Amino acid sequence: MKKNTKKIKLAVIATLSCLVMQSMSVSPLYVEAAGSSSDRPQTHRLPANADNVRWGNIGVGKPALSVNSGDIITVEAVTHHSGDDYERMIEGDAGVEDIFHWTKEEKNESERAPGVHILTGPIEVKGAEPGDVLEVRILDLNLRPSGNPAHKGKTYGSNAAANWGYLYGDMVEEPKTREVITIYEMETYGSANYAKAAYSYTWTPQTDPDGKVHDTIDYPGVVVDHDTVVKNTDILKDVRIPVRLHFGTMGVAPKEADVVDSVPPSYFGGNIDDWRIGEGATMYYPVSVPGALLSVGDPHAAQGDSEMNGTAIETSLTGDIQVILHKKNQLDAKLDGLSFPLLETEKEWVLHGFSYANYLSELGEEAQQTIYKNSSIDKAMKDAAYKTRRFLMDGMGLTEDEAYSLMSVAVDYGITQVVDGNWGVHASIDRGMFNEQATRLVTLRDRFESFGAKVKWNNAEQTAAITYGSNTLVLKAGAAEASFNGKKVKLYAPVRLEEGSVMGSEYFVKIFEAKLMTAK
Amino acid sequence: MKKNTKKIKLAVIATLSCLVMQSMSVSPLYVEAAGSSSDRPQTHRLPANADNVRWGNIGVGKPALSVNSGDIITVEAVTHHSGDDYERMIEGDAGVEDIFHWTKEEKNESERAPGVHILTGPIEVKGAEPGDVLEVRILDLNLRPSGNPAHKGKTYGSNAAANWGYLYGDMVEEPKTREVITIYEMETYGSANYAKAAYSYTWTPQTDPDGKVHDTIDYPGVVVDHDTVVKNTDILKDVRIPVRLHFGTMGVAPKEADVVDSVPPSYFGGNIDDWRIGEGATMYYPVSVPGALLSVGDPHAAQGDSEMNGTAIETSLTGDIQVILHKKNQLDAKLDGLSFPLLETEKEWVLHGFSYANYLSELGEEAQQTIYKNSSIDKAMKDAAYKTRRFLMDGMGLTEDEAYSLMSVAVDYGITQVVDGNWGVHASIDRGMFNEQATRLVTLRDRFESFGAKVKWNNAEQTAAITYGSNTLVLKAGAAEASFNGKKVKLYAPVRLEEGSVMGSEYFVKIFEAKLMTAK
Repeated sequence: MKKNTKKIKLAVIATLSCLVMQSMSVSPLYVEAAGSSSDRPQTHRLPANADNVRWGNIGVGKPALSVNSGDIITVEAVTHHSGDDYERMIEGDAGVEDIFHWTKEEKNESERAPGVHILTGPIEVKGAEPGDVLEVRILDLNLRPSGNPAHKGKTYGSNAAANWGYLYGDMVEEPKTREVITIYEMETYGSANYAKAAYSYTWTPQTDPDGKVHDTIDYPGVVVDHDTVVKNTDILKDVRIPVRLHFGTMGVAPKEADVVDSVPPSYFGGNIDDWRIGEGATMYYPVSVPGALLSVGDPHAAQGDSEMNGTAIETSLTGDIQVILHKKNQLDAKLDGLSFPLLETEKEWVLHGFSYANYLSELGEEAQQTIYKNSSIDKAMKDAAYKTRRFLMDGMGLTEDEAYSLMSVAVDYGITQVVDGNWGVHASIDRGMFNEQATRLVTLRDRFESFGAKVKWNNAEQTAAITYGSNTLVLKAGAAEASFNGKKVKLYAPVRLEEGSVMGSEYFVKIFEAKLMTAK
Repeated sequence: MKKNTKKIKLAVIATLSCLVMQSMSVSPLYVEAAGSSSDRPQTHRLPANADNVRWGNIGVGKPALSVNSGDIITVEAVTHHSGDDYERMIEGDAGVEDIFHWTKEEKNESERAPGVHILTGPIEVKGAEPGDVLEVRILDLNLRPSGNPAHKGKTYGSNAAANWGYLYGDMVEEPKTREVITIYEMETYGSANYAKAAYSYTWTPQTDPDGKVHDTIDYPGVVVDHDTVVKNTDILKDVRIPVRLHFGTMGVAPKEADVVDSVPPSYFGGNIDDWRIGEGATMYYPVSVPGALLSVGDPHAAQGDSEMNGTAIETSLTGDIQVILHKKNQLDAKLDGLSFPLLETEKEWVLHGFSYANYLSELGEEAQQTIYKNSSIDKAMKDAAYKTRRFLMDGMGLTEDEAYSLMSVAVDYGITQVVDGNWGVHASIDRGMFNEQATRLVTLRDRFESFGAKVKWNNAEQTAAITYGSNTLVLKAGAAEASFNGKKVKLYAPVRLEEGSVMGSEYFVKIFEAKLMTAK
């Protein structure tokens, strides 16, 4: 339970009408994106191609794009597992073909190391300096359609039960060390929010264009020769996997090393592999290097807490993100001294703990090798506990005794992943517990009209249509979903009508204000 | 995120109308409670008093009640932390006073060992034999009001940051080894579904009636002398803890030992401390001894996954439970060979893993002492992974490769508790993925009328009123909550109207059919 938080939500604080405010000033956390129409943020598009991605390295690098705080970027992210089914996941898609291009004579993305993920970026945020905090709002997230006309309107994803999986070598059936690829299929534009298995095959030795044989999944981007595998199409009949689109990897460049393995997540974010990092969520990262250098990749269609077999449903996604820079001398109490990737949704705060909070500095020179031998959930749990206590004390202003009691009676700890070297435990804090500004109700008309959007109430239909440029958001009183440019958007709770006004939370406003400002 | 599953839910499988069935035969999992009005189950009441409880021992014992399969028991469960506030949690409540009665001359419940929980029962289920599976449906769960007229309409609970807590000795403020009691207050009958902190105090040495001084929380039922503590009432202002009522401890007697510490959970259930074991949930336990011998206790108002500081909001609750015996030669594939406590709700299967799947047999003679030194989340995760794989293969008929892929892309692993000796990790499986009988829609009128209930449709209000005896269930089309005898019951999804019929799932029917049959 906890499956349907990937969409934007509307807070409904049913009994707290006393908290409704209309003109209260907003905190630095929210102020940057608000404002009049003249502040309209710049929008950018960062397509995925060999020029705009790096493969396996989340360290510092030459920016693919440079933006200002407040800007909105449509960023394409491509899965490094596309080679598991060339026909469905590469063929006919110019950007993906460009990235995967590898012949005997020529190899694009020749540096696929030390990690495995294709990362779009880095994106430089002008003015970002060490000590600042970078906020990244995920405004929209969509499946990337197959480029192959034979598979029009479909999107495919690959799940690899890989050699780094939790039960590898510990299977009940022989051979115990097998690696199995399962290809999942989704409707790209349909309303169906599930994936179905298409077929699976057991990995066989694959020869890359340079003549090297890969007996196991040990190098990214090797295109599997389907003549060498046996496809099993009779799998997972009648099983529908709920999709929860998210970026498996997103983060800023750390300062501890120049070339950084994209696999282990850490204080700078990276490969957190938390499915909550999806549409409607906001991430906060501590900035370590000038320009922040944000990378985005490893897109997933669905993943469970633990990512047990080594991967999710690895697919390609395109997202709209807005970046907001918080300068170090103006940080909110929750962000001041932030030392880990923090997730915010309308409903919860999610704190990410790891076996090593900062493995690069804690494990010395050989950190990037050592981390794989030292992970444990027990260590990650201790880290998550410490982070929760600190967040509740410093961020929420509680005493240690108050914080510790809440941690026991109201905070849920889950196992993020056990396959990324630096294993993860996350703490979910229900923010409905607190009297937080972001969850307070405001009159949507006031907030949307303040930047020039038009709000039209249809009394017969009990709907509010908010238009700005070519974008239209339709909210319906009592409905748990909205429509944005015709696309259904799930809400945290039904839209609330109060004394003739449609009310939403500050958090709702910050996300939808930015969505309305997105150029399409 | 995941907070609102404590109430009964209605499945809405919107796109699967092809699955709607009206006359399909039901599986052994559901057949026992169905039938004509002549099968009406017997109802019992098991009040909490010194005669009907045991303290600290979940082993075999003389039954407090003997019932048939299908019977419904209103069971009172009392918290062993009531002594933390005698005035609010013991005084004026005859049953609780009886259990806690302890003077220099006389001590009720003189055996408070080897564990700490007050357990109501055991309840003998006639005909139960080793190898059978006992199903326990939690039909209803309510706060127990304070017996003290000065606190009329209130219920109190205690959260102890105890010496067995996860961060004990590891605090940032001095003294690092302090134990802190926080008393929470709730409206017993109100619609408010939250708890607020009333006050807290740091534990001071307490002298029991026998003259023994307890420097620490080392013995259950010691009544705290409030003249020796300093109360801090200025705590957790504006914080509202969402309640999720549940039994911290429920299970059958194991066969490995006669006297069994109530603290470590294991294959037989016991102190699982999973907040999902609440209203609308069903538990399945493997029977190990004749009569099954079910114990119920350790009631909680709210707890987070991990139970970090050692306890939940420990309060007293009264529940209606229905017990269904599944004989070993007629077990459904999901229950055949069951070796752990399995939780079912309308929305999910939850599998409970532990550091040791059966610590009593795995750790030898000294198991009940050794377990406290050997726990780890890493071990519990491995156990939970093995159990998930086995459940998906044997119970759902999947191959190992299918099961392992699902475990990675769709199963969520959480940390149940890190404070009960045998630490827990649970696996949540979204059953909406499967084409399971229990989640298929049936016409409620047919199912309810088949045992003699009256169903009345009000077209103007779009409500269905189902009455049986003095019980009335009111369902409203499109509403995500129902009313049962005037009490609000949250549903998993809004009630669905389809071709003029109100539709619900088999799971919904099994719970509400039993609720309707409960004598009030």
